[in-house]
Amino acid sequence: MDLINTPEFQRLRRIKQLGVASYVFQGAEHTRFTHCLGVYEITRQMCDNFEINYPSVKAGDGLWDDNERLVALCAALLHDLGHGPYSHTFEHIFGTDHEAITREIITNPSTNVYRVLAQVDSDFPAKVASVIDHTYPNPQVVQMISSQIDADRMDYLLRDAYNTGTKYGLFDLTRILRVMRPYAGGIAFEANGMHAVEDYIVSRFQMYQQVYFHPVSRGMEVVLTHLLTRAKELYEDNQLLDPYRPELLIPFFEQEFNLQDYLKLDDGVLNTYFLYWQDYPDPLLQDFANRFLNRKPLKSITFMPATRRLLPRMRQLVADAGFDPAYYTAENDSFDLPYDQYDPSSANPKTQIEIMQPDGTLEELSTLSALVAAITGKSTGDTRFYFPKAMLGTPTDDLFAPIYAEFQAHILNGSLIPQNLEELDQ
Amino acid sequence: MDLINTPEFQRLRRIKQLGVASYVFQGAEHTRFTHCLGVYEITRQMCDNFEINYPSVKAGDGLWDDNERLVALCAALLHDLGHGPYSHTFEHIFGTDHEAITREIITNPSTNVYRVLAQVDSDFPAKVASVIDHTYPNPQVVQMISSQIDADRMDYLLRDAYNTGTKYGLFDLTRILRVMRPYAGGIAFEANGMHAVEDYIVSRFQMYQQVYFHPVSRGMEVVLTHLLTRAKELYEDNQLLDPYRPELLIPFFEQEFNLQDYLKLDDGVLNTYFLYWQDYPDPLLQDFANRFLNRKPLKSITFMPATRRLLPRMRQLVADAGFDPAYYTAENDSFDLPYDQYDPSSANPKTQIEIMQPDGTLEELSTLSALVAAITGKSTGDTRFYFPKAMLGTPTDDLFAPIYAEFQAHILNGSLIPQNLEELDQ
Amino acid sequence: MDLINTPEFQRLRRIKQLGVASYVFQGAEHTRFTHCLGVYEITRQMCDNFEINYPSVKAGDGLWDDNERLVALCAALLHDLGHGPYSHTFEHIFGTDHEAITREIITNPSTNVYRVLAQVDSDFPAKVASVIDHTYPNPQVVQMISSQIDADRMDYLLRDAYNTGTKYGLFDLTRILRVMRPYAGGIAFEANGMHAVEDYIVSRFQMYQQVYFHPVSRGMEVVLTHLLTRAKELYEDNQLLDPYRPELLIPFFEQEFNLQDYLKLDDGVLNTYFLYWQDYPDPLLQDFANRFLNRKPLKSITFMPATRRLLPRMRQLVADAGFDPAYYTAENDSFDLPYDQYDPSSANPKTQIEIMQPDGTLEELSTLSALVAAITGKSTGDTRFYFPKAMLGTPTDDLFAPIYAEFQAHILNGSLIPQNLEELDQ
Amino acid sequence: MDLINTPEFQRLRRIKQLGVASYVFQGAEHTRFTHCLGVYEITRQMCDNFEINYPSVKAGDGLWDDNERLVALCAALLHDLGHGPYSHTFEHIFGTDHEAITREIITNPSTNVYRVLAQVDSDFPAKVASVIDHTYPNPQVVQMISSQIDADRMDYLLRDAYNTGTKYGLFDLTRILRVMRPYAGGIAFEANGMHAVEDYIVSRFQMYQQVYFHPVSRGMEVVLTHLLTRAKELYEDNQLLDPYRPELLIPFFEQEFNLQDYLKLDDGVLNTYFLYWQDYPDPLLQDFANRFLNRKPLKSITFMPATRRLLPRMRQLVADAGFDPAYYTAENDSFDLPYDQYDPSSANPKTQIEIMQPDGTLEELSTLSALVAAITGKSTGDTRFYFPKAMLGTPTDDLFAPIYAEFQAHILNGSLIPQNLEELDQ
Repeated sequence: MDLINTPEFQRLRRIKQLGVASYVFQGAEHTRFTHCLGVYEITRQMCDNFEINYPSVKAGDGLWDDNERLVALCAALLHDLGHGPYSHTFEHIFGTDHEAITREIITNPSTNVYRVLAQVDSDFPAKVASVIDHTYPNPQVVQMISSQIDADRMDYLLRDAYNTGTKYGLFDLTRILRVMRPYAGGIAFEANGMHAVEDYIVSRFQMYQQVYFHPVSRGMEVVLTHLLTRAKELYEDNQLLDPYRPELLIPFFEQEFNLQDYLKLDDGVLNTYFLYWQDYPDPLLQDFANRFLNRKPLKSITFMPATRRLLPRMRQLVADAGFDPAYYTAENDSFDLPYDQYDPSSANPKTQIEIMQPDGTLEELSTLSALVAAITGKSTGDTRFYFPKAMLGTPTDDLFAPIYAEFQAHILNGSLIPQNLEELDQ
Repeated sequence: MDLINTPEFQRLRRIKQLGVASYVFQGAEHTRFTHCLGVYEITRQMCDNFEINYPSVKAGDGLWDDNERLVALCAALLHDLGHGPYSHTFEHIFGTDHEAITREIITNPSTNVYRVLAQVDSDFPAKVASVIDHTYPNPQVVQMISSQIDADRMDYLLRDAYNTGTKYGLFDLTRILRVMRPYAGGIAFEANGMHAVEDYIVSRFQMYQQVYFHPVSRGMEVVLTHLLTRAKELYEDNQLLDPYRPELLIPFFEQEFNLQDYLKLDDGVLNTYFLYWQDYPDPLLQDFANRFLNRKPLKSITFMPATRRLLPRMRQLVADAGFDPAYYTAENDSFDLPYDQYDPSSANPKTQIEIMQPDGTLEELSTLSALVAAITGKSTGDTRFYFPKAMLGTPTDDLFAPIYAEFQAHILNGSLIPQNLEELDQ
Repeated sequence: MDLINTPEFQRLRRIKQLGVASYVFQGAEHTRFTHCLGVYEITRQMCDNFEINYPSVKAGDGLWDDNERLVALCAALLHDLGHGPYSHTFEHIFGTDHEAITREIITNPSTNVYRVLAQVDSDFPAKVASVIDHTYPNPQVVQMISSQIDADRMDYLLRDAYNTGTKYGLFDLTRILRVMRPYAGGIAFEANGMHAVEDYIVSRFQMYQQVYFHPVSRGMEVVLTHLLTRAKELYEDNQLLDPYRPELLIPFFEQEFNLQDYLKLDDGVLNTYFLYWQDYPDPLLQDFANRFLNRKPLKSITFMPATRRLLPRMRQLVADAGFDPAYYTAENDSFDLPYDQYDPSSANPKTQIEIMQPDGTLEELSTLSALVAAITGKSTGDTRFYFPKAMLGTPTDDLFAPIYAEFQAHILNGSLIPQNLEELDQ
Repeated sequence: MDLINTPEFQRLRRIKQLGVASYVFQGAEHTRFTHCLGVYEITRQMCDNFEINYPSVKAGDGLWDDNERLVALCAALLHDLGHGPYSHTFEHIFGTDHEAITREIITNPSTNVYRVLAQVDSDFPAKVASVIDHTYPNPQVVQMISSQIDADRMDYLLRDAYNTGTKYGLFDLTRILRVMRPYAGGIAFEANGMHAVEDYIVSRFQMYQQVYFHPVSRGMEVVLTHLLTRAKELYEDNQLLDPYRPELLIPFFEQEFNLQDYLKLDDGVLNTYFLYWQDYPDPLLQDFANRFLNRKPLKSITFMPATRRLLPRMRQLVADAGFDPAYYTAENDSFDLPYDQYDPSSANPKTQIEIMQPDGTLEELSTLSALVAAITGKSTGDTRFYFPKAMLGTPTDDLFAPIYAEFQAHILNGSLIPQNLEELDQ
C-alpha cells in the first residue's frame, strides 16, 4: 500500500500509542503505526466476511456493497494520522485538534497522502475524510471505523492488553467478527454472539479503569503539562535561547503553526528538547524535564466532594515545604461511560449496539445482557490531588517535620480524610 | 505421590469433568483426574507463596504455618474423589452424594487412599476429610480448597475455558496468587490485586451463563435422566436380562450399594450398557440410548412465570404428535449467584472475599468494585421447556401438520409466547 | 453437517486420539472426534484460500477448481473413521486395518455415512474413499488430506501439542496456509514461507521423539498387548465365562467379525471388560488388567545391537525373580523418518515438499533449508527392553537380593551395559 | 530497586532493542529497558530455584550460595547499560564499545548507578562489572548472565519473538529453568530436560536466520551507515551549521567524547537530527535522512564466491544509472554459529551446554541430541549486494532502459547470476 510509505504515515512509527502510560506499563512501547495497521487488518476481515456472507444483490437491500471496501480500508488506515506526540497533553496546552488535523492531512493537496488517494479519484480524499467525520452516507462504513464496537476500539483494546500484559483486555475478536452483519441502519450482531460482545464491553470497562485511568500515568501527565507550560512561559519571557531553543516547537508557542510544522513533531523531538532543558538554568524547567525523562511522577490521593474543602490547606502545606504549588500540585479527574444506550436527546449520542434476533428484529444490548445492563450508564473514575513524593517522607526532626506530619495525617489508604470532625464542619 | 497411583484416584481418568457438556463444547474432553492434579498444583503454589512471604513466627499470629502444607495438598488432590459418572444426573436419580462418598473413600480403612494417608498418622485421613468438610480448625487451609475464590474454582474455570476454547473464563491466576495473603480469619487479597479478583468474578459469571448452563447440555441431561429412569423401570419390571443386564448398576437400581460398587462405575461402563441397550426391544430405552450416545438432545425454549400456564397445552401437542410426554418433555431451570456477600442470616452463608487495605483493614469486595457490586446477589439463569426436535419440523400436509403449526406458533426467538391475549387472560 | 450426526462418526467421541499416551501426558484426553473436526476446518481454510487466490479459469490450468471442495471436505472429515480403541495395539493383535475399515464404512450401503454421502450422488461415496486411498485423480485434493504436510498432520501435531502442553509441537499454521498454492502436480509452498514449513518439520521431529515414542507410553502398550493376548488365550481355553465374558470382543477373538461388530467397540467398552477382569481368577489377567487401568507400566532401558546379547540373561533374571518372562518382558523399538526426500526407487515413496521460487520453478525443501537437510533421512528412535519395576527394587537381604543386584548392575543411565568386557566377548 | 530509577537506566527506555529491525518487524518496538527488566526477572527465578533446590551446605560443595544473589541480580539488570542508539551501526562508525561503556557506567564514581551500587559496599560496583566481564570467580553467576543459554539470550529470544509475532522463537522457559542446576564448574541441565534445551537451540537458530539477519533490516543498516558517514564528512568539511548542527553528536564526530556525552544519546536524538537534515541542502544527506526516517531501504540480492567477480560490473551499472556507488551500493554478510562445542584451541571458546546424567556425569549437548548435532558448527548466513530499488524498475524506452535490462538480467530468484558462461570464465 503506497499510503503506508508516505512520510505522514511513517511518522506514526515515532509516536507511542499510549503516550505517558508507557511509563507505568513498561511493555506498552507500541506506536500508533502498528495500531493503524491493526485497524486496517480488522476492517479488511470485516469486509471479507460481509462480502462472502452478505453481498448486496441490489441497491438499498441493506447488505454489503463491496465497492465500499476501498474507502473503508483507507479510512481505517488513516483514521489516526493527525495524532501528535503525547497527544492528549499537547492538545490541552497548544489547542491543536488531532481529528481536524487528520482531515487536513487527508484533504490538503500538499501532502503525499492526498496525492496517493487522489490517484483513485479527485473526490476520493474528501470521501475518506467524511468517513472519519461520520458524514459519509453509508452507515455500515462509518460504523466499521467509529462506533461503540469498531475496528479502532477492538484493535487498541487487544493491542494495549497484549503490550501491557494485562489479561483484562482480552476478548474473542474472531467470534465478534463472525457474528457481525450489515443491515440498512449500519452493523448489528447475531444473537448467538451476544456473549462475545458482552465480554468486549466488560473488557473495555476494565481497561479504562486499570490502564487508561491509572493514577501514576496521570501523575506523569501532570509533570508533562507543567514542563511544557514552564517552557512556554520562559520562551514568552525571551529565554530559552540557543542551544536550548526548541526550534520545532516555536510555531506552537506562538500559536502560528501550519501543517508542515505539525508533521515535524514526534516523541523523540520533544524528548530531545527535554534532554537539553535538563541543563537549562531554571530550576523548575530543569526539575520537570528531569522528572519526565527519568520517571519521577507526582504522587496522588483521591478526594471526594466532601473532602475537597481540605485541598487549600494541603496546597498550603506543600508550599510550606518549599514547593511552588502552581507547579507541584494539581487536581485531575477521569470519567468514562463504559457503554451508553442511545439517547437521542443527549448532546453527543453514541451508536447503540444492536443484537439481531432470529426473526430479524433488533434489540439493544443492555436489554438482553444482565452484565451490560449492570454497568450501562455508570460513570467510573475518580478525582485526585497530586503533590511531590517528598511530602510522604519520614518526618525526622528537621524543620519540615510538623508540615509532613500534618500532611500525612490527612491521608488514609490512599484517600484524603479529615483529621477531625471540625474540619468537615468548617 | 502414592495417592495418585491408587485405583480410587486413577478411576478419575475415566470420568469427564464436564459430563454431558462435552457434547456441546466438543473440546471439553478433559477428566476429573487432570482437574484434581491442577487443584493440587495451585494449592502447592499458594503454600509456597505463603511460606516465602508470610511464614508464621509464633502460634496465633495469623500467618502461615507450613506444617499445614501436607494436609492442604492432600485435601486439594482428593477433594473430588467421590465423583461418579455424569455426577449431577446420577446423584439426582440414585440419591448418591459425592461429597459423602469422598469422605468415605478417605476415611474407610478398606481403601488404598486411606492406607496411603494413614502412613502419615492414624488421624491423618480424618484430618484430610475435615478440610473437605469445612470443619478443620485452620480457616486458611479450608479456604484454600473451598471458598468463593479457591484452588478448586480457579482450576476448573481456567481448565474448562482452555478446553472449551472460550475466552470468557480467562483471568490472571498468577496475579491472584501473588496478592493472596493469610490472616487470622482465613485468606485475604491485597488491595493492588483487586482488579484481578474482580476479573475472576466476572469470568465465573460468564462461564456459568455460557458454558455450565448451556441449553443444549441441559437437553442432553434430560435425555440421560430419562434413559436411566426407563432402565430402572424395566429392571424393576424384571426385564433387562442378559446380555442387556447392567451388572454394575444393579446395586444402585436396588438401592443397596456399597463403596466397592460405587468405585466400579465410570463413564465408559455406563456408555457400554447404553451401547447394549441400543438393541434392546423397548422402543423408549432404545431411542434414549441412541439419543444419548449419538447426541440427539431434546430441543428447548425459555418460558416465564407468565407463560408457564401454556405448558400443559404444549405437552398435549407433543402427545398428539405421538411422543409420550412423560419421556419426551421436561422442565429445567438453572440459577446461580455469581458472588454473594456474606449474610450471617442466610441458610448457607458463603465466605466473602476480603480486600486488605494498606492500613490492614479488610473491605468486602463488592463495596470496592463497581463491577462486582453490579452483579452481586443477582441471580442469573432461565427456565426451559424441552421437547422433541420433530415438533419444529416443516408442517407438510400430513396428519401432524396442524399440531406442528400450533406448537410453532407459540415460539418466537426461542421463547414461549401466547398466541393471543386471551391465552394470557385465561 | 449430517455426517457428523451419524452414529459411526459420533463413535469417535469415545476413542482417544493418543490412546495409551494419555497415561503419560495426562492432559492428552482429546478424542478422534475433535481431531476429525479440526482436519475438516483446516481443509476448509485451504479451499477458501485456493478459491480466493488461485481459482481455476479453465480446465488443466493447474489452479483450484472449487467443485472439488465437497469431496475434499468429506474426505477430511471422514479420514479416520475406521479407527478403533487403542488402534495400534488392537490392529497388531487382531489383524484389523483401520484404513480398510474407513473405506468400508464409507462405501458400504448399510452405514449411515454411506447414506448421507450417497444423497450427493451414487458415485460420491466411492469418490471420497478414493481420496483417502490416494487414487483420486486430482493430486491437490489428495495432498490436502495426505502428504508430508497435510491437514491431518497439521491438526494432530497442533492438537496433541495443545493437549499435552508441550511447546515443541507449535508451528505457524496461519502462515503455512497463507503460502500454500495449487499447481498442476499438487500443492507447493511459496518461497517466502519456507521458514514456517521448516519449523513444521522440526516440530514434527520433536513431537515424534518426545511424545509419540515416549518410553512410558510404549510401556503401557506392552501391558495392553499382554493383557489382550492373555484374554484371548483364556477364551480359547473356554474360560472367561459370564459375567467375565467379553461379548463384544468375541468376534475378534474368533476372527469372524463384521463391520457392525467393529463399530460397537470403543475405549469404554474395552475398559469395562478390563474392570470385570480385575476380579477374574487368573493371576496374569488380573494383574495386567490392574496394571492397565491403574497405570502400572513395565519399566524399560535402551539397548544397542552390541548389548542385545545380554537380553537372554536379563530375561532369565526376571524369571528367577518370579515373573513369567513371556508376559513380563518385551522388546520394543520405534523408528520414524522425520522428513524424507522423494525417492522413486523406495518401496513407499513419500510426497516431497516443494518450494516455489519467484520464477515459478520448484525446489525440494531440503535443498533450501540447512535445518531440514540436517535431519532429512535420519532415522530416530531407540530399542528398549521392558521388565517389571520390582527388578529395580532395593536389594534387601531377602532371597532375591542377588538377582536384583545382578540385574541392576547391568544398567547405567537408563541403558543396558555389560558388566565386564568378557560379557561383550562371549 | 533504586538502580531502575537512575537516569542511566531510564535512558534505556529510549533505545529500541532491535534497532533498525523494527522497520521490518513492525511490532518490534520494545526497548532495552524492558529487556533488562526481563533478564533481571529470569535471573531472579534462577536464584529462587537454586536456593530452594540446591542450597550450598559448605563452601566448595558446588551448590548455590545465596549470598551471590545480589551481585547476580545487579549484573543481570545492568548488563546492557552501555548500549546506545542503533548500537551495532553506531559502534561501527564511531568506534564505541558498548561493553566497555557498560563497565564504565558501573564503575565510574560520577554516575548514579555507581552511587547506588556503592551503598552496598565500595567494592561492589567492581564486582558487578567483573560478572559482566566474565572475570568473576564464581562460574555459576557468570553463566547465569553470559553463556550459550543464559538469562540474557533467553529473555531476548522470547521477547523478540513475542514482539515480532514469530512463533519460531518460542521455547519452554519454565521447563528450562526447572532443569537447570549448579555444579562446581557452572550450570548444567538435567537429562530429562534435554528436549527443552534442544528446542531452545533450534529456536535460536531460527531467530537468527529469520529475524536478526533479515535482508531488509540489513538494508536499513546500510542506509543508516551511509547517512552518518555523509554527515561526518559534511561536518569535517565545516558544513552542518545551525540549525542543522548535531550538537550532541559532535563529540563523536571529533572522537573526543566522554561518558556524559554518550549518555545523552538515544534513538530520538538521532532521529531528531535526521528530521532536520531532511531539509539540508546536500542531496545525499537529504536523501539518506529521508530513506531512513521513511523506511526506504536499499534492495539486495545474494551472491556467492563464484559470482563475486560480477560485482564491479553491477556497481558500474548503478553508477551509469546516476547513483554514486560509494553511497548507493554495499556488500554485507551475516554469519553466526547456532551452537558450538567447546574447543579449547579456538580463539574465543564458548561455554558448552552440559547435560547431567542420572549418575552425575556430564555430557555435552550435541553428543546426545541428533538435532543439535546436525546444526552444531554449521555456519548459516549469506552475502548480499545492496543497490537502489530503481535498478529493478521496468525498463521503459528511456535513456536508462539498457542499463536496467542488463542489471536485471543478472538476477534470478533473488540471487546474482552470470548472464552467460563466459562471465564465469573471465
